Amino acid sequence: MGMINVVGTGPGSVANITPEALQCIQDADVVIGYATYLDLITEYLADKKVISSQMMQEVQRCTLAFEEAEAGASVAVVSGGDPGIYAMAGLIYEIAVERDSDVEINVIPGLAALNSCAARLGAPLMHDFVAISLSDLLTPWEVIEKRLHAAASADFVIAIYNPKSKRRESHIEKARDIVAQYRPLTTPVGIVTAATRDNEQIVVTTLADMLDQEINMQSCVLIGNESTYTWRNKMVTPRGYAGKYQLAK
Amino acid sequence: MGMINVVGTGPGSVANITPEALQCIQDADVVIGYATYLDLITEYLADKKVISSQMMQEVQRCTLAFEEAEAGASVAVVSGGDPGIYAMAGLIYEIAVERDSDVEINVIPGLAALNSCAARLGAPLMHDFVAISLSDLLTPWEVIEKRLHAAASADFVIAIYNPKSKRRESHIEKARDIVAQYRPLTTPVGIVTAATRDNEQIVVTTLADMLDQEINMQSCVLIGNESTYTWRNKMVTPRGYAGKYQLAK
Repeated sequence: MGMINVVGTGPGSVANITPEALQCIQDADVVIGYATYLDLITEYLADKKVISSQMMQEVQRCTLAFEEAEAGASVAVVSGGDPGIYAMAGLIYEIAVERDSDVEINVIPGLAALNSCAARLGAPLMHDFVAISLSDLLTPWEVIEKRLHAAASADFVIAIYNPKSKRRESHIEKARDIVAQYRPLTTPVGIVTAATRDNEQIVVTTLADMLDQEINMQSCVLIGNESTYTWRNKMVTPRGYAGKYQLAK
Repeated sequence: MGMINVVGTGPGSVANITPEALQCIQDADVVIGYATYLDLITEYLADKKVISSQMMQEVQRCTLAFEEAEAGASVAVVSGGDPGIYAMAGLIYEIAVERDSDVEINVIPGLAALNSCAARLGAPLMHDFVAISLSDLLTPWEVIEKRLHAAASADFVIAIYNPKSKRRESHIEKARDIVAQYRPLTTPVGIVTAATRDNEQIVVTTLADMLDQEINMQSCVLIGNESTYTWRNKMVTPRGYAGKYQLAK
């Protein structure tokens, strides 16, 4: 019996892949993943069986990972970002359950969009936050709306995944309008697109103006809480509600 | 004028530090940090000026980072986990604002507790989630309670930071009781203590039994959403509310 390591390659540069993740890829007999993520690590793929997204869809790829592992291979399923945050770890476990598989499964974390986008914007996630995906492919839109209301009303910093695609241009507009019911239009908003990649774009704007900015499938949108402010084009969320208490200590 | 890189070293093993983070430490003239994090990277600290937590408190250390950078040094401020999630990036920016400093500041992300604990537990963060700290040192407890209600009522997966300290034994009990108002006592709960360290402990339990488990300052507690289930001692949150729709595709 082989094993499956679900490996995260982070935002999109080799400098952001952990040594543990790279080691798992190097030790694998079979590497499976979406072509974009494999392109990042081609130099580590020589002499391996490589199964990329050109060949088949997500569920088929993951099923094949089990077939290879059950036949004795050490398999690396490669995922961009962190496989444990909205990514491949879930599908692998769902298929494991369906097969009641004895294959050993490990999740090797990577930097998620949340980590890398926050870093680019300054210090927006210094206080309680939510991550919400606006994709209604598998989630009813009413559930998403309910969460936006809950998050906005309880003053969470809000990180929006999948803000926009061709099929759902209006979701980010609706999300903004919900948050604007609870927070002033001057609330800082950060938009990071393609973090660490060649086409990276970083915008710090406000709830009033965010919809005038380019937002696409590769964007992550961070909306500040009541206390978040902007300084020299960075977003800063203070660590508490005690003002500068901690600086005076 | 020098610069300050706020560098994340992840959960606690060198295999989880990104090459970018390690490079920043190697390139620094001055390395500043809490002793526990510096112990992990002692081999990279030869010939550097090292300022550790034994010598002074957090605000003093960060202020010194600015003094060194303003005098021309390249400074690495080292933080465990991800400096951008409840960690040092915030204090550095708050001090930068106070000084209106021209020092260049970069945040180099690392794996947060969220990333590494989720990986250890299986696939708990496949759907929308919140991170909430139970520390009321800088945040009124009423705000924390309000957020727990909001998160639990809108079916977010809930990641609890700082669940317990000697000064606030009862916070985790109160948090559990609030969540139990909205979710069945059979809801899966994962507790990861000291992820990737020698004393790592991983427990998968339920909302009913979680308080019988060891929970301390080094623990992160993840409470599943309505759909999260347990399989072979792992937590699995399905990617949507469409059942096994995606497996049949």
